[in-house]
Parts: sequence; structure tokens; C-alpha cells
Amino acid sequence: MGVPVQGAAPGVASRHQSRLLTLLRDEGPLSRVELGERLELPRARLATELGRLAEVRLVESGGPAASRGGRRSTLVELATDLRFLAVDVGATSIGVAVTDARCEVLAHQSQECDVRQGPTTVLDRVAALAEQVMAEVPGRLVAAGVGLPGPVSFREGMPVAPPIMPGWDRFPVRDRLAGRWGCPVAVDNDVNVMALGERHAGVARSLDDLVFVKVGTGIGCGILLGGRVYRGVAGTAGDIGHIRLDDYGPACACGEVGCLEAYFGGAALARDALTLARSGRSAHLAEVLARQGTLTARDVGVAAASGDFASINLVREGGRRLGHVVASLVSFINPGMVVIGGGVALLGHQLLAEVRSSVYRRSMPLATGNLPIVLSELGDLAGVVGASWLATEHAFAVHRG
Amino acid sequence: MGVPVQGAAPGVASRHQSRLLTLLRDEGPLSRVELGERLELPRARLATELGRLAEVRLVESGGPAASRGGRRSTLVELATDLRFLAVDVGATSIGVAVTDARCEVLAHQSQECDVRQGPTTVLDRVAALAEQVMAEVPGRLVAAGVGLPGPVSFREGMPVAPPIMPGWDRFPVRDRLAGRWGCPVAVDNDVNVMALGERHAGVARSLDDLVFVKVGTGIGCGILLGGRVYRGVAGTAGDIGHIRLDDYGPACACGEVGCLEAYFGGAALARDALTLARSGRSAHLAEVLARQGTLTARDVGVAAASGDFASINLVREGGRRLGHVVASLVSFINPGMVVIGGGVALLGHQLLAEVRSSVYRRSMPLATGNLPIVLSELGDLAGVVGASWLATEHAFAVHRG
Repeated sequence: MGVPVQGAAPGVASRHQSRLLTLLRDEGPLSRVELGERLELPRARLATELGRLAEVRLVESGGPAASRGGRRSTLVELATDLRFLAVDVGATSIGVAVTDARCEVLAHQSQECDVRQGPTTVLDRVAALAEQVMAEVPGRLVAAGVGLPGPVSFREGMPVAPPIMPGWDRFPVRDRLAGRWGCPVAVDNDVNVMALGERHAGVARSLDDLVFVKVGTGIGCGILLGGRVYRGVAGTAGDIGHIRLDDYGPACACGEVGCLEAYFGGAALARDALTLARSGRSAHLAEVLARQGTLTARDVGVAAASGDFASINLVREGGRRLGHVVASLVSFINPGMVVIGGGVALLGHQLLAEVRSSVYRRSMPLATGNLPIVLSELGDLAGVVGASWLATEHAFAVHRG
Repeated sequence: MGVPVQGAAPGVASRHQSRLLTLLRDEGPLSRVELGERLELPRARLATELGRLAEVRLVESGGPAASRGGRRSTLVELATDLRFLAVDVGATSIGVAVTDARCEVLAHQSQECDVRQGPTTVLDRVAALAEQVMAEVPGRLVAAGVGLPGPVSFREGMPVAPPIMPGWDRFPVRDRLAGRWGCPVAVDNDVNVMALGERHAGVARSLDDLVFVKVGTGIGCGILLGGRVYRGVAGTAGDIGHIRLDDYGPACACGEVGCLEAYFGGAALARDALTLARSGRSAHLAEVLARQGTLTARDVGVAAASGDFASINLVREGGRRLGHVVASLVSFINPGMVVIGGGVALLGHQLLAEVRSSVYRRSMPLATGNLPIVLSELGDLAGVVGASWLATEHAFAVHRG
């Protein structure tokens, strides 16, 4: 029953403290001299602020720093026993990680879980999994971050009208989990979280303006502008999965027709794979279907990688459609990088080639000249790394009262 | 020869002064009590800052304020003789206005002018027009703002690879005009400038997140996020005119094919109007062609308004294409308002109806639920009001050195 990670609610009392913690998270141990320089803080003031952070055991001394001539300075680092819970709820799986304060994953477990089971069942399973993972790496739990596969009201910490999450509409995810774990919880859309993960520790390190396109069961994108998640007026910015490509296209889970997701989401790929297998156009998929009794988007990826012509075509056609949407997005936003991730990123380099070709052909040279379009570096871990980052961001902010 | 408006280079020395000037520009005369409250400045500090601004004659006393009980406060306003030059260079016209410090247009003149004549000729004509307009309303010239119909490097104050402005690539517009007028000059893309105009004094007053779509000779959009122009990594954000709709579509001035602009820009509409007139599908346009010897986008608008079926169809088809692009844009950015302006906005309510129908049908309800899609309120003046705002923004900022 006992959660081995103890809840702590350390107080970050000033903007200086908040900036110190953020700097130590993003850059690792730094000497007192370096910290003073970076924050332009006089030595006495720095000592006071660090003293307060040490009192609440958020930072600790890390031994002598490398000499830069003159007196040796002392290294400061984030307390090594701080723990953050990072939860990645997908359409068909849940993942839970425990990280340190630098968002390094110390333990991680995931399991299949259908989000359509509803919030009570899914969050119970998340909590059970979290208990197991926390047992692996004891420490002081500070905060938790959660990514959900649908639109989220960040301010209220709950999903709002999520198309593929029946029963979750306005369910108070943040407050339920905060009550259970006794620590602050931040909840966001999974694509925003994955974008933050790639920016903190993945392929987009230190980039301020980027777009993370997730192709999984759903399709969506997270937009970072100036290093921050851009959400739009109603929180729906980046919702590209339901851009309508054709007024007479296939039906979508959202209730409309012809959405990008209805062509190239996980369910659409599985549907098209079944057609290919049953119609005899793909002997490869027919064989897999006979063996498994069912087909998934993953099977299409494997078949395409092994040279199955019909599967390659499916990936290409989907990539072309996705590419058209990404090309528009590049024209609008003119980002510094496009990262493609999510389960269907399995489709890998064939998908990437198709998207690149669409974007480079369809957007203005000035917008694409220095634009890398790349696959996620963190892969399955993008969600939990980003969720951990979200949790640290919340914990290291100054809160009133 | 003499320019009746004298160049002044008043110094804004502190952030407080900058905020005072901005507040007086956006809200008009305010009492000293109100200014102190709004800026949370103690009375003595406010008096010092206002004293300095009065010394350089940026503000002046405007008589007693309305009583709120207790001692009467004095009104403060921006000096009434401050003048800002606002220049709107279009593809086929130039407009110059002189405004006061609140971006109110005091005098305005425009004339036809083909931007393809190149920067030397066009800027000479702008300067000649500016001299005439300034002669109408004497005062102290503080700064100038300029909108250009193509991509601009805001930092360098020059156009960069503009598709419809031959000879302008990297021409130092800002520095040439600043040298001529002896005042600071700010240069930006016309759509960004028009978006700022609508936000300051038009239909989008006080909205922070909005998209201004200009349909004229070119098609583009200005994106304001958090009240500021969002430019993207290479300054091309909002460049929707060259989104490719069809790999085998009509040729575009940019050298590519199938761009939105090649279907629905001013030149495309004139081209299609000619076809309709010559093929006998529009008796109305054929008659106008016989009378004028040529046809423009404006003629299509007039014909459509008078019920010409072929012209109405042209507007509808263009509006549908524009609507698809705007729908994607709404899905990505989730703005608080979409404003449609530029010459083709003449096409008015038929165009608006078509765009609205596309967006409301194709974007997610959460993004469109409270989304007004409206015509520009400032019309032809959006460019100069925005250019004046750009000029005041530059003049009221604190500059180093």
C-alpha cells in the first residue's frame, strides 16, 4: 500500500530561485561563480537564495568545481533524491516514468491500455503502474506531469471534448491525481508534451520555434513559439488531425468526414491494411492477417520495411497527404524545425521522404531553406520526458500563497 | 523645397516614459491620477517622468480632468503638433498619410503607381507625395512607418526576395527614407502593418490573437500573437499566397505553379475575367472590356455585385479556395478573429460568405465556436493606420545610445 516516494511540497519563494532551479535543470551542476554570472546576482544575494533552496533540500553542494584560476568555487546541483512522476496516456497504451529533477528517466514501464475504458479505470491503472515504478527508485516526489491524447484545458487540468476519449470530457484528471499523489500535477495534450520533451532532451534541443507532428492513433501537432507551448485562443492550436482534406472522404472518429486522421491515423491504416489483405493486393498482409486474425498500423510499417509494394504505397499516399498539411503549416508558422513522432513514425524513412518532398516542393524557399524535417529522437520516451519537464516547470515556478 | 514638417528626435529615456507614451496613444488624454494608478508609479516619480517628456515636448498639459471627488487632477496628452508619416506601398498604388501621435489620419493622398517601376522611382514618388501631404498639416515629424507588398527583413528594413517587386530585393528602403526625412523609419510587410492597423483602430480593437488576410494583387496574411507581429524563423510566417493547391495548377508570378495567388490574386481574377468576356460567358464583362479595353479584379467585383452570374461564380470559387487555406490556418493557430481586407475585399459579402462557409464546415467546433470572420473596417486606410502605429511604436520605444 505504502508509496515509497514521499510527497514534498518545497516552496520556491522568488524569481531568482526559480531561475536558479531552471538553470540547474537545463545545464546540470554549475559552480557558484557561474551561477552568479549567469543570473547577474551579487555574491551575497546568491548565497541567500541558494541557502533557502538548500534549506528546503531542493539543491545540494556537489563538491569543488574545476578551477578557472583563482579561488576554487563550489558546484551546486539539484538534490539527487528529487523525484518527478511522468505519465504518458496514449490511445492504446499507458507509460509511467520516474525521473530526477533534470528529467532523466530513472525507471519506466508501459503497458497496453485502451483509453476508451474511461478515466476511472485508466487512471486506476496509471496509479498502480506508478506505484510499481516509484518502488524501483525511492526518493522525494515533488510533482507529476501528464500527457493525454486529446484537447486539454491546461488551466483546468482536464480534457475538453476529446474525440477519441469517450467518457473523459471535463473529467478532473489533474485534481484526482493530485489528491491521490499528494503533489502538484500538470496536465496537457500529449503533442505539446512530446514537443517539450524533444526540445529538452531530443532532436530539437535549445530550439525556440518548432512543430512536433505526432502520427499515431490520432494525428496532432504541438507548436512551440519562443520556447513556450502555443495553445491558441481556445486551446486548439495545432489540431491538424481534423483538417478536412475532402468533403466526401472517409468517416472520422470525430463525427466528420474527410479529416486527415481518417486517411492516415492508426485506425485508418489498419482499415486500409485489411482491405489490401482481403482483396489479395498484398500477399504479405494477407499472411499476417491469417496468422494474427487482425492487422494494425504497425503491421503496415513492418510490411513496408520488408518491401511489400502495396504497404509502401499506403505509406507514400498517407505521407503525401500529411506532407500537404505540413507544407501549409510551414508556410503559416515558418518554424525552425519539424519533428515527426508517434507510433506511426515507425513507418520511418519512407514516411519522412514523402513529407519532405511535399514540403520542399510546396513551401517557399525562404521558409524551407534551413528547415530540418526529422524523426523524433526520443521515440516512445518523448511523452514521459516532456511530462517530466512539465512537472519540473510547475514545481520550479513561483506560486502565490 | 523646404519640408514644412521639421524632424525631431525626441529621446525616450526610460521604460516608464515608454509606457506613458504608449498608454496616451492607445487611450487618449488621461489625468495624472489615472496615469499614476495605471502605471503603479508614486506621484513624485510620475511627475519626474512626465516633466522629462514635457521638456522634449512629447506630452503637454490638457487642462483640468473631470472631477472624481477630491482635488482636481490635470489631464496629460500627447503633444498635438507631433506628426508621423505613414506610407502604404501597394502593388499598383502608393498611399501616404500624416497622422498625429494617436495614429489619427490628418491628411491622406494616394495615387496609382506600379511597384515594378523599381525602388528608386517608386520611393521618389513616395517622397514627392509625402511632401504634399506634410504641407497640409504642419507639425514636428517624429518618425515614419512603411508597409511593402512583399517579404521584409524587419531587422534590416529591406525587402527580401519579394515575388512581385522586381528590383527591390535587399534595397535599403529604411535607410534611404531615413536619410531623406531625417527621422527614424520602420519598414514591414504590408499585411503585418494592416493587421496592426485593424488592431489599433479597426475591427480587431484590443484583440491579442488575430489573423489579417489580405487579398489584393498578392495574397498574404499577418499574424498577431499576444498583440505582437509573429514573423517566424525566417520572417516568412503568414505567407499563404504561395501555398500550392495543385501541382498542375496555373503559373504564378513567384515562378511556381498552382499557388493560391495564381488562382485568386488580382492578376488571376483579371485573367479569368478576360476569358469570361472573350468566350461570351459574361455579357456584362464583355461590355466592360469593349468600353475599357481591359479588365481588372475590381471589374469582377462590380459585375458580381450587379448580379453577373459568371462573375459571382468566379468569386465563389476563389472564396472556396481561400476558405480551405483559412480553415487550415484556423486549425493551426486557433486565432481570436479572422479579418479579411485588401483590394479584393471589394468582393465583399459574397467572398466573406464563401470563406465563412468553408471555415465553419472544415475546422473543429472548438476553434470556430467564438471565431468572428469579418471584413476589414479600415479598408484602404488599414495600411496607413498600421504604418503610423509602427512609427509610433518605434518612436516610443527606449533605444540604447
